Amino acid sequence: MTKILKDEDLVGSHLMAAAIDALETAFRARAGKRLISPPRHHVSFPDLGDLVFTVGGSLGEKPLAGFRVYETFDGAEHSQIVAVWSADDARLKGIVLGACLGNLRTGAIGGLAIRHLSAPNARTIGILGSGAQARTQLAAAAAVRKLDRVRVYSRDAKNRAAFASEMQNALGLDIEPADSAREAVAEADIVISATTSQTPIIHARDLKPGVHINTVGPKTLQGYEIGLDIADAAAVLATDSPEQTRAYASPFFLAGSGNEDRMADLADIIVGKAAGRGSPGDTTLFCSVGLAGTEVVVASAILDRVGVSA
Amino acid sequence: MTKILKDEDLVGSHLMAAAIDALETAFRARAGKRLISPPRHHVSFPDLGDLVFTVGGSLGEKPLAGFRVYETFDGAEHSQIVAVWSADDARLKGIVLGACLGNLRTGAIGGLAIRHLSAPNARTIGILGSGAQARTQLAAAAAVRKLDRVRVYSRDAKNRAAFASEMQNALGLDIEPADSAREAVAEADIVISATTSQTPIIHARDLKPGVHINTVGPKTLQGYEIGLDIADAAAVLATDSPEQTRAYASPFFLAGSGNEDRMADLADIIVGKAAGRGSPGDTTLFCSVGLAGTEVVVASAILDRVGVSA
Repeated sequence: MTKILKDEDLVGSHLMAAAIDALETAFRARAGKRLISPPRHHVSFPDLGDLVFTVGGSLGEKPLAGFRVYETFDGAEHSQIVAVWSADDARLKGIVLGACLGNLRTGAIGGLAIRHLSAPNARTIGILGSGAQARTQLAAAAAVRKLDRVRVYSRDAKNRAAFASEMQNALGLDIEPADSAREAVAEADIVISATTSQTPIIHARDLKPGVHINTVGPKTLQGYEIGLDIADAAAVLATDSPEQTRAYASPFFLAGSGNEDRMADLADIIVGKAAGRGSPGDTTLFCSVGLAGTEVVVASAILDRVGVSA
Repeated sequence: MTKILKDEDLVGSHLMAAAIDALETAFRARAGKRLISPPRHHVSFPDLGDLVFTVGGSLGEKPLAGFRVYETFDGAEHSQIVAVWSADDARLKGIVLGACLGNLRTGAIGGLAIRHLSAPNARTIGILGSGAQARTQLAAAAAVRKLDRVRVYSRDAKNRAAFASEMQNALGLDIEPADSAREAVAEADIVISATTSQTPIIHARDLKPGVHINTVGPKTLQGYEIGLDIADAAAVLATDSPEQTRAYASPFFLAGSGNEDRMADLADIIVGKAAGRGSPGDTTLFCSVGLAGTEVVVASAILDRVGVSA
């Protein structure tokens, strides 16, 4: 019985907690070189677009294998497919269709970074952006920290109001729209930047000492959403995939800044192979790139928890 | 609405006819270089096995793109996935799970070869083998020729009796079990060899003039199911993929026989770029290798015809 899940099956905050825990295991496997994530595989269809595969899995006691595929064809409807096998018995565990899993995965990676890098007593969070990524990042933060104040800024006042009321309902947290990016982050212990901005909307001077920042939006030299001085100020710089930061078509935003060599692998911080937050005043910065192969791990955890059997 | 089909949805002889017609279009596209079938892509999971992807599609007015994936893990349950997009509007048409589609596809390729290579008035067929491939090859032959006599041989008398009674029910044809391979093929206008035999079970002397043969089973120098003298006797030698015959791990069974250079592409025969059957006494031989990418074309045709929407 192969389970098949669609976007409408992927609701409920217990799924975010499960995704973060599954990724915690996967990142520990990665630190031990037991997470498989080969380079993307593209197949081109002339004049139409590509099919792009990311294959991945984890070795160990209950090995997983699978892939995500998406296309770059021209059209309104885009459906990703993620498939997962339990590799020790060749059983196809299931298939997850749609766009939600990818967002949930990126959110959960952000949550894992917040769990391991932000101050344990962080309570206040500032969100920049009001799209799907901003929503899942906030849900992930709420799964790992006891938040009591959330502020959100995005350019369009309507969008930030909608975000505040929807996420307040979804998470049971008080959420205030802010009139500027600076206002949203001024008192924040955690900042999530999940915008599409190609120019920095916050700088080091806007932030409180001891803050942790997740940057989820643009971060190539061509365009980046947070000021380079935040990296200068950070005691810890981390990413989910140093190798992917080096593989961007346009160079990573920290290239040539003197900071790129300080970039640690979140997996190494989690297992204690690299240094994490040292003192309460440390600024920590996490650059989220979306480690390939993690969709499979998250899909597996979701398939274990959602009961729709087809 | 993405359709999801499983083995139990792929029943009914109308599907075989649809598959053959879809492949006819695809092979014509191939002759015009509008069928996409890049090399297989393997990803290895150490000590567990591989995921193997064949990507494919067709260009033209209603372009298709998709892939098949299977695994080589150790286990009892093996489920393939075939996914199809309409590439002009990025819509995921559907997903087909299980083992049936692959068999249907190989059967339909055999049917296409029989349509274009056997005598138009062929009525008598001899089947060697009684497995899944023997069944779908016979169903395909029945879809393209008006058969009135079917004989089947396989080593185990019980298997050939079961094949005869099941296929008689399925196709409404009289089917007789034969006591030997020679007896099964002696009067046949069409011979289908779909065995696992590594040594030839029929030779040129066993066959009637004017016969068409499909060899679906082993055909490498390491082992092959039909005598090399059948290739010597054949006026026409064809395959669905000359490039795949050259890519076998062990060389193709005709390597060094002097016949390998006479091998024509079935696609070229269909469009008249290569010579097909010339006279009623010609022996024709089709070597089925399973052209990569055709699963996507067949899956698309099946998805258009089976109404299960999920």
